[in-house]
Amino acid sequence: MAEPARLSDASSTQRVVERLRAMLGERLSTAPAVREQHGHDQTWNELGLPDAVAFVQSTEEVAEIVRLCGEASLPVIPFGTGTSLEGHVSAPFGGISIDLSRMDQILEVHTEDLDCRVQAGVTRKALNAYLHDTGLFFPIDPGADASLGGMAATRASGTNAVRYGTMRENVLGLTAVMADGRIIRTARRARKSSAGYDLTRLLVGSEGTLGVITEVSLKLYGIPESIAAGVCAFDSMEGACNAVIQTIQLGIPVARIELLDEAQVRVCNAYSNLGLAERPTLFLEFHGTTAGTAEQSEMFAAIAAEHGGGAFAWATHQEDRNRLWQARHDVFWAGRAYVPGKSALATDVCVPISRLADCVIQTQQDLAEHGLFGPIVGHVGDGNFHVLVFCDMGDPEEIKTVKAFCDRLVKRALAMDGTCTGEHGVGRGKMRYLEAEHGAALEVMRTLKRALDPQNIMNPGKIVTI
Amino acid sequence: MAEPARLSDASSTQRVVERLRAMLGERLSTAPAVREQHGHDQTWNELGLPDAVAFVQSTEEVAEIVRLCGEASLPVIPFGTGTSLEGHVSAPFGGISIDLSRMDQILEVHTEDLDCRVQAGVTRKALNAYLHDTGLFFPIDPGADASLGGMAATRASGTNAVRYGTMRENVLGLTAVMADGRIIRTARRARKSSAGYDLTRLLVGSEGTLGVITEVSLKLYGIPESIAAGVCAFDSMEGACNAVIQTIQLGIPVARIELLDEAQVRVCNAYSNLGLAERPTLFLEFHGTTAGTAEQSEMFAAIAAEHGGGAFAWATHQEDRNRLWQARHDVFWAGRAYVPGKSALATDVCVPISRLADCVIQTQQDLAEHGLFGPIVGHVGDGNFHVLVFCDMGDPEEIKTVKAFCDRLVKRALAMDGTCTGEHGVGRGKMRYLEAEHGAALEVMRTLKRALDPQNIMNPGKIVTI
Repeated sequence: MAEPARLSDASSTQRVVERLRAMLGERLSTAPAVREQHGHDQTWNELGLPDAVAFVQSTEEVAEIVRLCGEASLPVIPFGTGTSLEGHVSAPFGGISIDLSRMDQILEVHTEDLDCRVQAGVTRKALNAYLHDTGLFFPIDPGADASLGGMAATRASGTNAVRYGTMRENVLGLTAVMADGRIIRTARRARKSSAGYDLTRLLVGSEGTLGVITEVSLKLYGIPESIAAGVCAFDSMEGACNAVIQTIQLGIPVARIELLDEAQVRVCNAYSNLGLAERPTLFLEFHGTTAGTAEQSEMFAAIAAEHGGGAFAWATHQEDRNRLWQARHDVFWAGRAYVPGKSALATDVCVPISRLADCVIQTQQDLAEHGLFGPIVGHVGDGNFHVLVFCDMGDPEEIKTVKAFCDRLVKRALAMDGTCTGEHGVGRGKMRYLEAEHGAALEVMRTLKRALDPQNIMNPGKIVTI
Repeated sequence: MAEPARLSDASSTQRVVERLRAMLGERLSTAPAVREQHGHDQTWNELGLPDAVAFVQSTEEVAEIVRLCGEASLPVIPFGTGTSLEGHVSAPFGGISIDLSRMDQILEVHTEDLDCRVQAGVTRKALNAYLHDTGLFFPIDPGADASLGGMAATRASGTNAVRYGTMRENVLGLTAVMADGRIIRTARRARKSSAGYDLTRLLVGSEGTLGVITEVSLKLYGIPESIAAGVCAFDSMEGACNAVIQTIQLGIPVARIELLDEAQVRVCNAYSNLGLAERPTLFLEFHGTTAGTAEQSEMFAAIAAEHGGGAFAWATHQEDRNRLWQARHDVFWAGRAYVPGKSALATDVCVPISRLADCVIQTQQDLAEHGLFGPIVGHVGDGNFHVLVFCDMGDPEEIKTVKAFCDRLVKRALAMDGTCTGEHGVGRGKMRYLEAEHGAALEVMRTLKRALDPQNIMNPGKIVTI
């Protein structure tokens, strides 16, 4: 579907910018460097710079900006920390980037109810630092220190999702500004409710295309009495995947279970000096009581042994554990350091766990056949894995090869009844796959978008075109 | 807001009925007894009989019925087992009741992936009986042997939700017929996805007002190695509630934690011969390994002792456990037997757990002040509780008193940042509270309803009027 070059003409854009400057003063920026920083992410998706960036401080300011933009049919693009991976923050039709990073107040923490309410710009690490003395924590961990508003908007998950769920399960409610400037609160503080349509879940994962999330209410959890982590290498990819399946099937409440393929282990060894054997490897973490984590890890060790797993190497001390998970989180940077001349594209798919070994092995073969280097790491308890594929951006042939590989990866996942993205989101990068994934349901998504954003000003050109 | 007496005139209704009879033969019924059975539930909500009842056998039949009804602006009202409690199945504007109970096939069970796909008419007990030999089970248990389609449509939960979540967390995807007859599948079989708007969660809890759910994909769980259950009486309501809060806060993964107030214990004793002391009492269940459930129950016993809890009475044998939970599930019938001359109204609210003791105690005082009898039982790990309030339907004054009590109960919950219904749903009974609960968000719900059902034929007069 063709998209207009811009939604708003230059003079009306200019009028909005002037009114915003009157309202926000120096918190409105049209500096090229600021616009540049807000218009791109670490992906290949085409850039598109916003006309201006508004550093907002309140929900009411966001509402006023959305109303002004609505009058001029000017796009609004929410921006948290810019760590998304599918072009979510780009401004292909210009418009106002709403930077929520200064909305960084933790508004309420209810320790008895295990919940909190934060402004959208609070990052997950800032929240956990704040919570530290309460004995509570917020588990969802996509790697990057993303803003909680952005994590809600992209339905983020990460290493802990196998135990604690994704943002879908952990957002209790949201405050959001809708396309008409209306401020809504999607839910009250009760843990569950059957009182009407689930607007919380409609906005979680909507990537700013239905509303701008300005506050997030979250579930919290007690910091476990005991945390045990370790590493286990396997003879084969099938063995590693089958060990994961059996662990999940037995209901072992594993907190993290991450698969690294041989290439990923090599890259991590080089960057983080882990000294691991270059074999398909699981990084694991168990949360519970002292007796509970001991029991969980014994049960896992028995399962691993059945499936060609070696001895379980414990990371007993917190520093060892931190080092292990830091290495896991650093895979993107580790890859870039390993292949210095090339660009790295991080992509993800998710399949039913029974298809995981097949999907990973076929993907490795595909990489090899096409002479590509793409380490694989995955949140395998959920069937979700990432390929960090490298490309010489000066070589048009290699760009074509990499794009074709990514296309085959998605089609492979869809053929296995999986999804084109487990956690990175649609943004601009995965739009072309939604028809194949959702069929007739895609038109329902378009109907929702048209109903809630009839002017198409809310992060237009992402998820669906209308 | 005024509602039309009917949406369709008698002659066009008659034409649809004739076409449906041609299509369905004896699977279309206009018999008064059948219409009567499909037009009411166990509540006080006004009856409204459908013009006919269609006993469907496939998604395609449902789609054809919805298309025909759309041509005549005739309502369609999905019907599962008729166990909902807020008038969901009534037909205030006439129309076709779509009875899904013959869509009772279990279509797929993937033991490796811990998921299944069933037709909407499969009941939870039928699914669990079918699963028995696989070592898996589906935990959500609203008491009644409801259909899984109905449970999805009403976002049901029940005693196990504290551990396993509600239908919101346990539906992986749905097949649904939308108002234009379009058949959609809301999600693929991957455990998680960030690929677009969450249509699954939009339909879960939409009570047939946005689409007719015809198939449900569900998460399954391994039957725990060990199940331990028991009963603990407390000196005070505060003590019992504080024990619950601390249990949740410590992350003890309790599978069920149900509070019965003194009146409820008395009623259960009378019906189920439990012989319990008439004190605020918790029924509990722990799931895990043998060592794990032992540890969980020891930890709980220590918490209970701190809060005025007596000795923990174990239900060690499966028969004792079944008797305990049967008594819990029978509270509705137990109440009716205890107060034979009166009608029983089951209502529910849900509040943040820190407000639970306050809310329950104020509710007990309210009942006492107004001379009403209303045993209280609750899924207290979620802050959700029920009052079964009794009323002499021949006494207009008492009806007024009971209605006023229910109204105060909802307002009390809302004032505590709770919800007007934790799990029963809105139906017709709770519509009047959505404005107070949702404020500006209610208009967003109306926008969604108008967009997805512009003719207002999908279970009209429930949740929102447009």
